[in-house]
Amino acid sequence: MSARELAQRLARREITALEVTESCLERIAAREEVVRAWAFIDPDLARRQARELDAGAVRGPLHGLPVGVKDILDTADMPSEYGTPIYAGHRPKWDAACVALARSAGAVILGKTVTTEFATMTPGKTRHPRDPGRTPGGSSSGSAAAVADRMVSFGYGTQTVGSIIRPAAYCGTVGVKPSFGTISRSGMKMASESLDTIGVIARSVEDAALLLAGSAQRDDFLNIESLEKPKLGVCRSPNWKHMTPEGAAAFESAVKRLGQLGARVIEAEMPFEELDAAAGRILAFEMARSFAHEMTHHRSRISPALVERRDAGLAMPYAEYAAALEYAADCRRRLSDLTRGVDSLVTPGATGEAPVGLGSTGNTAMNRLWTLLHGPCVTVPAGEGPAGMPLGVQLVGPPGGDARTLAAARWVERVLT
Amino acid sequence: MSARELAQRLARREITALEVTESCLERIAAREEVVRAWAFIDPDLARRQARELDAGAVRGPLHGLPVGVKDILDTADMPSEYGTPIYAGHRPKWDAACVALARSAGAVILGKTVTTEFATMTPGKTRHPRDPGRTPGGSSSGSAAAVADRMVSFGYGTQTVGSIIRPAAYCGTVGVKPSFGTISRSGMKMASESLDTIGVIARSVEDAALLLAGSAQRDDFLNIESLEKPKLGVCRSPNWKHMTPEGAAAFESAVKRLGQLGARVIEAEMPFEELDAAAGRILAFEMARSFAHEMTHHRSRISPALVERRDAGLAMPYAEYAAALEYAADCRRRLSDLTRGVDSLVTPGATGEAPVGLGSTGNTAMNRLWTLLHGPCVTVPAGEGPAGMPLGVQLVGPPGGDARTLAAARWVERVLT
Repeated sequence: MSARELAQRLARREITALEVTESCLERIAAREEVVRAWAFIDPDLARRQARELDAGAVRGPLHGLPVGVKDILDTADMPSEYGTPIYAGHRPKWDAACVALARSAGAVILGKTVTTEFATMTPGKTRHPRDPGRTPGGSSSGSAAAVADRMVSFGYGTQTVGSIIRPAAYCGTVGVKPSFGTISRSGMKMASESLDTIGVIARSVEDAALLLAGSAQRDDFLNIESLEKPKLGVCRSPNWKHMTPEGAAAFESAVKRLGQLGARVIEAEMPFEELDAAAGRILAFEMARSFAHEMTHHRSRISPALVERRDAGLAMPYAEYAAALEYAADCRRRLSDLTRGVDSLVTPGATGEAPVGLGSTGNTAMNRLWTLLHGPCVTVPAGEGPAGMPLGVQLVGPPGGDARTLAAARWVERVLT
Repeated sequence: MSARELAQRLARREITALEVTESCLERIAAREEVVRAWAFIDPDLARRQARELDAGAVRGPLHGLPVGVKDILDTADMPSEYGTPIYAGHRPKWDAACVALARSAGAVILGKTVTTEFATMTPGKTRHPRDPGRTPGGSSSGSAAAVADRMVSFGYGTQTVGSIIRPAAYCGTVGVKPSFGTISRSGMKMASESLDTIGVIARSVEDAALLLAGSAQRDDFLNIESLEKPKLGVCRSPNWKHMTPEGAAAFESAVKRLGQLGARVIEAEMPFEELDAAAGRILAFEMARSFAHEMTHHRSRISPALVERRDAGLAMPYAEYAAALEYAADCRRRLSDLTRGVDSLVTPGATGEAPVGLGSTGNTAMNRLWTLLHGPCVTVPAGEGPAGMPLGVQLVGPPGGDARTLAAARWVERVLT
């Protein structure tokens, strides 16, 4: 049952929040040993929230729906460890803004989902639900795996590089990185102020929009209808060379199907050759400052990869960073030319299937430049690759164009599944 | 002695960090009862930091210099209460990024300075150093009063509306709100992601630039030379009508003097009539989300003014907020036309002298629109009004133009004082 359907039945009191929560807890009990999606879960705490909701009035659009919260976001009643031993057992005094708003809208905060170290590169313990020898992607590893494995209907992710869209695509779920700034970052452990974006992972576009609505207090997300036969701009981007042969072939065939099924498909050139490098520079420069406290006091407990990146960011001259910001702003202005006349751009959600191995969360080449462009990115499942692993097609729009991008994604989702 | 001179003598070991710290502590002991600038100060903790610095190598450009930290920024070794009883005694696990970077550069974190409630409207306990019956301005009340009263050379402020420039102007100090994004907000209790900006209050432009350099790890701030006879665009802005007669007269006479002293002064029209209202809408919409946790769990301990504003922000349709953001972005593009051909814009730092009474922190009309434009704002003392209270002249530049704006401010500071 979709979260939207559950919400309707919960609002009519045909089922209870406790029943929904128990069914999540059962699935987690059965599968967590293999999937390892959760950084923290206390079944009794979840049940208490559900009982309280069942005993009171219907609070809002998320009433009674369990939500997984990526452990880079603060929770007042659960540890918030940010994927690092430095903050083992840390108990914030507050809920992150999106968590507080979701609770006000009636959500049951089921538990904390695994993040990579500070939502950067070094993986956590989560494994791909379909093949425990493969990465689920990251950094929103736990939310993607938990949603894919039907442990919970939806959960929060955050994306600084490709941390929502890539794991969502790898795991065969819907992922939404909304426009930059859509969800308040108050109560998020930040890495890069110019890139960090909170979003959601769900099993359908409609469900994702429902959680977005509750998390940003945005009623306009509550009724996203599917477009009919949208005009799509196929954008292979300057990073197309990073696609695996299987990923590229599957994307071309998905695009062909979209055309056959009624989309008007045009080619969209994206001449932003330096954008990927600019994102790397901005991230390094800003991360070097965001993690100043941890780098001073806990350096030995931070992964060597992050220390190295941080030191590079600290050594970077300001002019180089400023030039990268300027280039990004220019590309953002030119993005409107790229998206004008189409309902959405279409590009792969990842370079291919989830790779074998748990030492890396995969290649971010299809994500990083879009994150820096600040527009909405939505990945929807688009079949499987030769290894039987899911693939995703990514819809992208201009900043602020979330409603249209989600509406286009609903159509793509409907015709491809 | 200026912070820059102290730093040089400290680096040469001609004086010790402990001596500098003791002299601050003495002044605080003598004056704090009247001024009430500090939310927290532990003399022994300050002394311990100073002794440790004296015993080790010179760490960086801030070596041995005491810094006041506005209590909206986190400190790992001191309470961080954000101007609200909700967080009385709260001890964060980390230093805010700027505090951590300042420590790495050798700063002594002297204590926490008073902020208004969550750095918004409702005043704290601080009084104007020259007249305890007057507001020092806010929300960076404690930092402005402490610096003006020579309790410390410089300190941090934050500005969401006018919270650095206004108190700095009222207190007769230099205030710098750098370009949006200059100092990482990691570890700041945020109100509005589109507006919140960390900056500094000091007794000279050179000192302010020194603290900025250490707080943002920006070496390019270390050597800001004064411009010679800069070209200044006098900008009275759409809010000129809010100036007090004395404030307006004093500004006109300061502009006249700048011209006599060699500046090339031209008039700069600023046709951004809706910008002030746009800032108000953006603030209300974003604040409604940032404070979601507190509004749910501690509503009765939040001032009625803030609750009212928050509820208005929650009721605001997204389209209204989006239109305000769009308008601001457009004004930001047009700002470059306004600043092209001049070294800096010149406008008052506040609407007049610090008003009598402690129930309000004064009128923000000369600040709010500039904050939303995201460029650097620097106020320097420009004499006194009829009540003997300080006035400030504000220099403004385009986003990223901090170095030139600071250089113009050095010239204005030099000729006016």
